[in-house]
Amino acid sequence: MGRWEPDSRGRLQEAALALYAERGFDQTTAAEIAARAGVTERTFFRHFADKREVLFGGSELLEERIVAGVAGAPDGLAPLDAVARGLDAAAAMLGESRRDLVAARHAVIVANPELRERELAKLAAYAAAIAASLRARGVGEPQATLAAEAGMSVLRVALERWAGGGDRRSLTAVMAASVAELRAVTSAGG
Amino acid sequence: MGRWEPDSRGRLQEAALALYAERGFDQTTAAEIAARAGVTERTFFRHFADKREVLFGGSELLEERIVAGVAGAPDGLAPLDAVARGLDAAAAMLGESRRDLVAARHAVIVANPELRERELAKLAAYAAAIAASLRARGVGEPQATLAAEAGMSVLRVALERWAGGGDRRSLTAVMAASVAELRAVTSAGG
Repeated sequence: MGRWEPDSRGRLQEAALALYAERGFDQTTAAEIAARAGVTERTFFRHFADKREVLFGGSELLEERIVAGVAGAPDGLAPLDAVARGLDAAAAMLGESRRDLVAARHAVIVANPELRERELAKLAAYAAAIAASLRARGVGEPQATLAAEAGMSVLRVALERWAGGGDRRSLTAVMAASVAELRAVTSAGG
Repeated sequence: MGRWEPDSRGRLQEAALALYAERGFDQTTAAEIAARAGVTERTFFRHFADKREVLFGGSELLEERIVAGVAGAPDGLAPLDAVARGLDAAAAMLGESRRDLVAARHAVIVANPELRERELAKLAAYAAAIAASLRARGVGEPQATLAAEAGMSVLRVALERWAGGGDRRSLTAVMAASVAELRAVTSAGG
């Protein structure tokens, strides 16, 4: 396959997720992923630093988009509404992914404790960045941390729901519905 | 030091936390902890399976108490109120700890990525257990997961606040205040 093969990145992702599901993440090598995708190992490493990167690539960009969404929210918006702007930005970016690949990624991560811990660490890092952005908007603690972490629960829940296939709405719609559900579940009673 | 030395467990914890802070968790051995505490290495291993256990011992019991609190909440309570019963149970158990040791534990964990990931994994496991308990009470998804994860954010935030020394109230009081803050931060706006 040539160097300028346009879709090798997508084919590599698909091949990697299929192999991780079949053999397990630990038992799969970059060479095997490249072979399954019909490209050279060099091509694999031009797209991904390692086999973990297939699952977690793009997370810095996602964090930037979320934080930019929060930071760009109109002044005076309530903390969770500012977080919801960040979630909209995340939905716009992630909503372009293929649902079946997002679902496959989720299944691989759930099956592997090390990957699960890495995923949790990423979400915790996003939450810390959102909380810092809220504090810069004048939100105090613990409000900033509570709103940021609740937002990350919403992101995870909405993504699973959307990728799981039961919910055919756009990710943006599922995200908004999940924010509303968070509100309902935390405001009721007392 | 004799086998029946009553406070060797407490002295071991204190010695371990001091050494983890001074040298780092990875650079500390069980033998060094025992020496600092003035007990034999055998005594260390009678109290803890390994040096990690000094930080994470008691987490199964804590999970049981939290889940029992949720499961024992009166019928018809809103999801977050049922979670708050679990948090009360956690506060009753953890509130007996020395604040300075809880703060020292927190500082050690924050300084070490592997320990941080383990701590996040524990909180995620508690959240999954709480969500299961809520579903058994008839709460649907994603409400059960959202309420459970919000509860774990509250637990973490309240514990840090209480141990940090700025807030002299009991852990039970700090926990209740943090639940109220979560409610305020998620119900405002919309």
